[in-house]
Amino acid sequence: MRTVTPDNITDVFTSYFGPDTDPRVREVLTSLARHLHDFARETRLTHAEWRKGLEALEWAGRITDPERNEFVLLSDVMGLSSLVDMLHSVPGATSSSVLGPFHVSNPPPLPIGGDMKRDFEGQVLLVEGHVRDTDGNPVGGAKLDIWQTAPNGMYSSQDPDQDIHSFHALMTADENGRYAFTTVRPVSYTVPNDGPVGQILDAAGRHPWRPSHLHYIVTAEGFRTLVTEVFPDDDPYLDQDTVFGVRDDLVMTYVEQPAGSFPEGFALSGKVPDAYSRVEFDFVLSKA
Amino acid sequence: MRTVTPDNITDVFTSYFGPDTDPRVREVLTSLARHLHDFARETRLTHAEWRKGLEALEWAGRITDPERNEFVLLSDVMGLSSLVDMLHSVPGATSSSVLGPFHVSNPPPLPIGGDMKRDFEGQVLLVEGHVRDTDGNPVGGAKLDIWQTAPNGMYSSQDPDQDIHSFHALMTADENGRYAFTTVRPVSYTVPNDGPVGQILDAAGRHPWRPSHLHYIVTAEGFRTLVTEVFPDDDPYLDQDTVFGVRDDLVMTYVEQPAGSFPEGFALSGKVPDAYSRVEFDFVLSKA
Repeated sequence: MRTVTPDNITDVFTSYFGPDTDPRVREVLTSLARHLHDFARETRLTHAEWRKGLEALEWAGRITDPERNEFVLLSDVMGLSSLVDMLHSVPGATSSSVLGPFHVSNPPPLPIGGDMKRDFEGQVLLVEGHVRDTDGNPVGGAKLDIWQTAPNGMYSSQDPDQDIHSFHALMTADENGRYAFTTVRPVSYTVPNDGPVGQILDAAGRHPWRPSHLHYIVTAEGFRTLVTEVFPDDDPYLDQDTVFGVRDDLVMTYVEQPAGSFPEGFALSGKVPDAYSRVEFDFVLSKA
Repeated sequence: MRTVTPDNITDVFTSYFGPDTDPRVREVLTSLARHLHDFARETRLTHAEWRKGLEALEWAGRITDPERNEFVLLSDVMGLSSLVDMLHSVPGATSSSVLGPFHVSNPPPLPIGGDMKRDFEGQVLLVEGHVRDTDGNPVGGAKLDIWQTAPNGMYSSQDPDQDIHSFHALMTADENGRYAFTTVRPVSYTVPNDGPVGQILDAAGRHPWRPSHLHYIVTAEGFRTLVTEVFPDDDPYLDQDTVFGVRDDLVMTYVEQPAGSFPEGFALSGKVPDAYSRVEFDFVLSKA
């Protein structure tokens, strides 16, 4: 009889696979079991700790619904989501980063130079740049799906005072790959911290903040879809994004512009007498 | 700025701990993160696989309720539950094994020599043995909480045709630590396989069977509580318990006894003219 021991349980686990098991299933499950077992062995995980972990998953299950996914959030704060993103980023192209739960379908089209802030107050931010391929050639006609928080820190789907398309837009780059729009600065915000993930953050002495960011999904025929976020270099949480989304190449700089210098070619041209900020960010897509 | 890369994300994770974090919380979360990250790095886990894993957890959350805990079952079939049991087993004492979800509160008292099978059909099984300490001294007055499947493979809580205390009993060992009762053989059964755990077993080419077993919780003043199961050596699933519960010292042998040899001192004495089986199993408790 094959007895199970703390030392051989991983081998016993792998001995249970059927002969026709898909090799990738075998590889992933074997690695998962080995790391679960190593985790328990190294920490000499107690019954009470095991029970606490299971209760956290049960709680996550109870509060997960179509609007809130506590399992994705758990993966986010453990760094797993970002790691999976990074493992499949293409060198030379813009890094991908977490999608998050606030994307909406069918964002409203916005022409180049259009305004996304609508009636919201705040200093105008002019965002522009180009979409290029890894050789530096423009990717004309690339689509940019753009979204961000309102100044109150909430995305439209979280906020009964915003319509669902508030701070969401779909822009088509011109033949030079150029995009441009006006908005107000997105703001830092906290991930939901009233569930098991909040308890883990508390126990670890971690805050629930994310640095402010603009979300983009950039797509173009023949290129890999890029899901990413870009962050201003002056955000206080840049070094400690609770979901590990920041990469060197995703950091941008807001540059203050003097009053009276707002350019032509924008929906707001002639309507911005005050100082405003400008940021330039170029996207690099890799071939599909 | 500290940028996050696939190589440094575990270090970034540990750099987020607050200065007053409990050392054990830090140890467990650091090990968990490192193994999650190593798992993803080694397998180069894809977005699709990550998504599939999260969907399995979401599904587990939807079907978990007070009667069924898919997260515990997931831990069971991954070998984690048994590993945690084994890590805290005491050398020299009887091994612990998985509690499972079928224990009931307030089992009915059964005197030594009592019958647990009631009106169920089947060859009589006589079970007896002693509870001892690690020096071989009897543990008089030890309590044995005993449960098993009915011949149809179901525990009372799963079976509308059984009352909740069917095949459950609480026995107090005598001053010599002796316990004894009659029953019918428990049978092999499958763990629930209509949820995400069933899909994982299917993908791995694994069956959902557990070898038949008698469950015990043995308690005595001044001793560590023993939660365990004992398995007959002729069960076809002994070598491949889908929840990894079998240990060398938990295996017992049913010995066939000739017709007319049923002993005195049992509730069924004088009522078993046929052949019957007998099994002896001693429990060894470690000091608290």
